Amino acid sequence: MKRISCEVVAVGTELLLGQIIDTNSSWIGEQLALSGIDSFFQTKVGDNPERIKSVLSQAVDRSDYVIVCGGLGPTQDDLTRDMIAELMGVELRLNEDLVEKITAMFSGRNRTMPKNNLRQAMVPEGAEALPVMPGTAPGLKAQLNGTTIYAVPGVPWEMKQMVTSCILPDIRTETGLTSIIRSKTLRTWGDSESGLAEKLSSDIERLDEEGTATIAFLASGVEGLKIRITAKGDSEESVNEILEAEAERVASTIGNEIIFSRNDQSMEATIIELCRRQGLSLGLAESMTGGLIASRITSQPGSSDVFKGGIIPYSSDIKQRILNVSKGPVVSKAAVEQMAKGACDILNCDVSVAVSGNAGPTATEDEVGRVWMATSVDGLLESFTVKWPFDRERVRQFTTISVLNALRLRLYSRQ
Amino acid sequence: MKRISCEVVAVGTELLLGQIIDTNSSWIGEQLALSGIDSFFQTKVGDNPERIKSVLSQAVDRSDYVIVCGGLGPTQDDLTRDMIAELMGVELRLNEDLVEKITAMFSGRNRTMPKNNLRQAMVPEGAEALPVMPGTAPGLKAQLNGTTIYAVPGVPWEMKQMVTSCILPDIRTETGLTSIIRSKTLRTWGDSESGLAEKLSSDIERLDEEGTATIAFLASGVEGLKIRITAKGDSEESVNEILEAEAERVASTIGNEIIFSRNDQSMEATIIELCRRQGLSLGLAESMTGGLIASRITSQPGSSDVFKGGIIPYSSDIKQRILNVSKGPVVSKAAVEQMAKGACDILNCDVSVAVSGNAGPTATEDEVGRVWMATSVDGLLESFTVKWPFDRERVRQFTTISVLNALRLRLYSRQ
Repeated sequence: MKRISCEVVAVGTELLLGQIIDTNSSWIGEQLALSGIDSFFQTKVGDNPERIKSVLSQAVDRSDYVIVCGGLGPTQDDLTRDMIAELMGVELRLNEDLVEKITAMFSGRNRTMPKNNLRQAMVPEGAEALPVMPGTAPGLKAQLNGTTIYAVPGVPWEMKQMVTSCILPDIRTETGLTSIIRSKTLRTWGDSESGLAEKLSSDIERLDEEGTATIAFLASGVEGLKIRITAKGDSEESVNEILEAEAERVASTIGNEIIFSRNDQSMEATIIELCRRQGLSLGLAESMTGGLIASRITSQPGSSDVFKGGIIPYSSDIKQRILNVSKGPVVSKAAVEQMAKGACDILNCDVSVAVSGNAGPTATEDEVGRVWMATSVDGLLESFTVKWPFDRERVRQFTTISVLNALRLRLYSRQ
Repeated sequence: MKRISCEVVAVGTELLLGQIIDTNSSWIGEQLALSGIDSFFQTKVGDNPERIKSVLSQAVDRSDYVIVCGGLGPTQDDLTRDMIAELMGVELRLNEDLVEKITAMFSGRNRTMPKNNLRQAMVPEGAEALPVMPGTAPGLKAQLNGTTIYAVPGVPWEMKQMVTSCILPDIRTETGLTSIIRSKTLRTWGDSESGLAEKLSSDIERLDEEGTATIAFLASGVEGLKIRITAKGDSEESVNEILEAEAERVASTIGNEIIFSRNDQSMEATIIELCRRQGLSLGLAESMTGGLIASRITSQPGSSDVFKGGIIPYSSDIKQRILNVSKGPVVSKAAVEQMAKGACDILNCDVSVAVSGNAGPTATEDEVGRVWMATSVDGLLESFTVKWPFDRERVRQFTTISVLNALRLRLYSRQ
């Protein structure tokens, strides 16, 4: 099958200056992939005539389709229309239909139309306006050296409507694309990207040969590694069947223990699900993470079904008074286990996690990055320590996910 | 003055597929602008050897500097090192210093290093490793046809450290850039962008004429509105003088109460500073926000100077048992004031904030979005209620910033 490629160009100096993050290109890229259209390049360029033309003509040379985002507004800075016309070697003409539509848009909102909005009704000769126009900026479709250029506004909701309801169906119809692409994401914690790649190398090779699906690793920092399986097919059913079978194979290769979710759900959602299924209530005693674990748990709708509450004993005297921690070093196996037990006692809950450590930046009696973590399940305590080589925020983040993962493994083996 | 241009290339198929949004390029673009370096193009390209080479060689042709982001990981997909070597026409060599550093990184985290991580210690002949290496991926600096290429990992925090502490100073030194651009950010809470713009319109007009500085508004959602004043000059002193004078004018126009920080610091940092200056200890009782307030407070280095701890009484019985809340509705003026008082009592602290509400998505006896908030200062309780029209996460976020702002205003008037 012929592979169709579509390239995205985002126009706007504000994108280069980082004043606005270009989420449009990413979104379009995702939609193209799901439609079975390849996308090899995405370029951002400022509001400069020569540079816009050079980027557009390069895109036209190397891709079957080009989607240009932005630069369709009413001001002199908005150059996309003019540059497409220049590249085509034609004039811009006032399109009376568009004048009417734009005027109607303004009067419908009880606003008078500023004169320069009529610039938006200009269309390069031989090009056409897109039939879908959610805002006051019309989209364009133009031909240049055998490549189709679509121009859409940079306003995300306007752009999205044009791409979804007009451009993607247009490309699929023109090119006879009928297949669909779906993916399934397994989330893992506890192995490195290279470690997982090594374990899955024969599966990846097999899939490379079979061509039925692909496996990709997405490093997600503190959130672990995602394994994304993607398959293409003619129907939802056939694609889902492939995805389920491959997910099963991946799981049996790397082991179920390392996978905390098979449907892209977060670690905290997994913990809540495990507690709910086993009828367990959850409590926390977090010193160093200082509410981070609790805030992740409570970010989940329905967390109140299992989460009773937490104690944040930031100062030592609160550890002692409320959680019955003995006097002595608070970053220690003894203290963190007493915290986990104390949390179960005072919060009257079945399982708990506890954290005590020094996140930095200043060393105290404890070195920076030293953390003790404990879990209590069925009255049995387990604890471990790590010395993180990170900055304060990442020490807190990595501790949060690590201790939740430790609890997950205990609940998992309890089922 | 010669204008220096630096182009950004982001490498990774996941960027084109929209699985990850490329925030790196935007961030780098912003830093370049603040350093007085022009940036005309930003390109995303997938993990494909030929396409990476074509994008890199084009970037080298048209820019003085190129920063390549991503593709420095340990897997076969990570092609940046190899493609730079190919373009330079040299071999990759194993760098023993890097081997040592990478090995140490893994052993520090109690993990065994997979063999293929040694790929990251390969450096093109004639290129050098960047001296700053926050993670396991070394950055590179290479020369190609008179242009300098910097390669940095795609992991944001690793990339940021390399760009800030190494690449930007390097470019400025090499090119003799001495003019500096600085900005000062006032952070506000409680007025709209159009409201502030109206109040500041005559200042903005005056600056447009004088050309000494610019004022920009950055809407930051739940974090309020930032007012950014930017000025350019030959010395830190002259630029800072302009910034201070303009900040003073802005503050006297919009009023000091609305400004929670004059140096871009967060609401929680402001609270800690106010408590520290007044010798007050702080405690929390947060039900609906469930640790979000505490996690923001404890994200600040030195928060342990003032923050004693918090109670997260997610279930009603914990509100009653630990915080002495009376039986009855927990989302109420009475309950939230008892929570604030109970927090001061059990945590033995001078001031406290308390939150109780329903963040949704399901209505209980309390409507979705209904929140009661209280503060206790010098034993005096104040409380207020809001019905947010938002989703769960934004209800939690807006509540957090609102109650902290309420405490700020009380501490501010107490000074």
